[in-house]
Amino acid sequence: MSYLKERILEEGVIYPGNVLKIDSFLNHQIDPGVMKEIEKEFYDHFSDRRITKIMTVEASGIAPAIMVAAHFDVPMLFAKKKKPSTLKAEEAYTAEVYSYTKQTTSTVMVPKDYLNKEDAVLIIDDFLANGEASMGLVQIVRDAGAKVAGIGICVEKSFQPGRERLEKEGLDVYSIVRIESIDSKNQEIKFKEGH
Amino acid sequence: MSYLKERILEEGVIYPGNVLKIDSFLNHQIDPGVMKEIEKEFYDHFSDRRITKIMTVEASGIAPAIMVAAHFDVPMLFAKKKKPSTLKAEEAYTAEVYSYTKQTTSTVMVPKDYLNKEDAVLIIDDFLANGEASMGLVQIVRDAGAKVAGIGICVEKSFQPGRERLEKEGLDVYSIVRIESIDSKNQEIKFKEGH
Repeated sequence: MSYLKERILEEGVIYPGNVLKIDSFLNHQIDPGVMKEIEKEFYDHFSDRRITKIMTVEASGIAPAIMVAAHFDVPMLFAKKKKPSTLKAEEAYTAEVYSYTKQTTSTVMVPKDYLNKEDAVLIIDDFLANGEASMGLVQIVRDAGAKVAGIGICVEKSFQPGRERLEKEGLDVYSIVRIESIDSKNQEIKFKEGH
Repeated sequence: MSYLKERILEEGVIYPGNVLKIDSFLNHQIDPGVMKEIEKEFYDHFSDRRITKIMTVEASGIAPAIMVAAHFDVPMLFAKKKKPSTLKAEEAYTAEVYSYTKQTTSTVMVPKDYLNKEDAVLIIDDFLANGEASMGLVQIVRDAGAKVAGIGICVEKSFQPGRERLEKEGLDVYSIVRIESIDSKNQEIKFKEGH
């Protein structure tokens, strides 16, 4: 069993509404040992794609994204949820991202300066559920005339439609861990084979 | 001249109100080469302190903090600005942080589970100006009965009172770059000697 599955089984807590909390090593407290395994696995899968940039959304995607960027030795770019005071609206690529948990839509943005037509972008995120954040990033990359070289996800909730939506766009999604089902009553997690 | 000073002079843009934008390599797009230099410099300075944890505030502190954590091989913990739905109020350490640019106060929090009395915490942040975020983290570490082993800052605005406030608390502040003054009219930056 992989390092990430082991940690999920040991430390994951399941809440009603398919919420899996793995805050102790992935997205509040972060174990650099887990990050090193993650960056290596993504590198092994995506290293032949001539990646020029790693991209994610703040905040919980930043840690895996910068570690992956360091492994590929390319810049990491994260979309912000609030427009910095120094960034004019016309200087940014933006996308609307709907949050199913919060039931609100927010705008994410990156400065136009940091993406160009020659870029082959690897999108990295901690979780994939409905795929809203990833779809927003895909739209931004395409608005810039750049190419999405792949999408690397730490933990995919395979019972939610995110992966299907991304694959319909012709994208290569690689998830380190795929979860088939979670059961809050019995605190039971079933993994799905493959990546 | 150090790598970080060079990049600031080459790519930094100054806006009125002492705003220095170095988004192209430090806190929107992030250059992993700069991160590797930063993590090494902090390690060289703080490696004798028996650091058990690296701590920062979301979002722009996360990238340097996880890189430093990987170098020290200890967990990284970041304070969140919004309470996760899975975290009860009594399960978190909190601190109020005032933002001078936004003129608003926000509450930052970390789960109590992730700090304990034995921890020696190195606080990492991208910028130090008025010191509000760092002071909030110091309070949280002390509330947990843990020790602040030091504060590592990428870019310090030495003409603002953050460093003085932290040193009054008896804390060791190490800044990779110290800025003595910035002049938006002439786009001129003066560095201050030392760390």
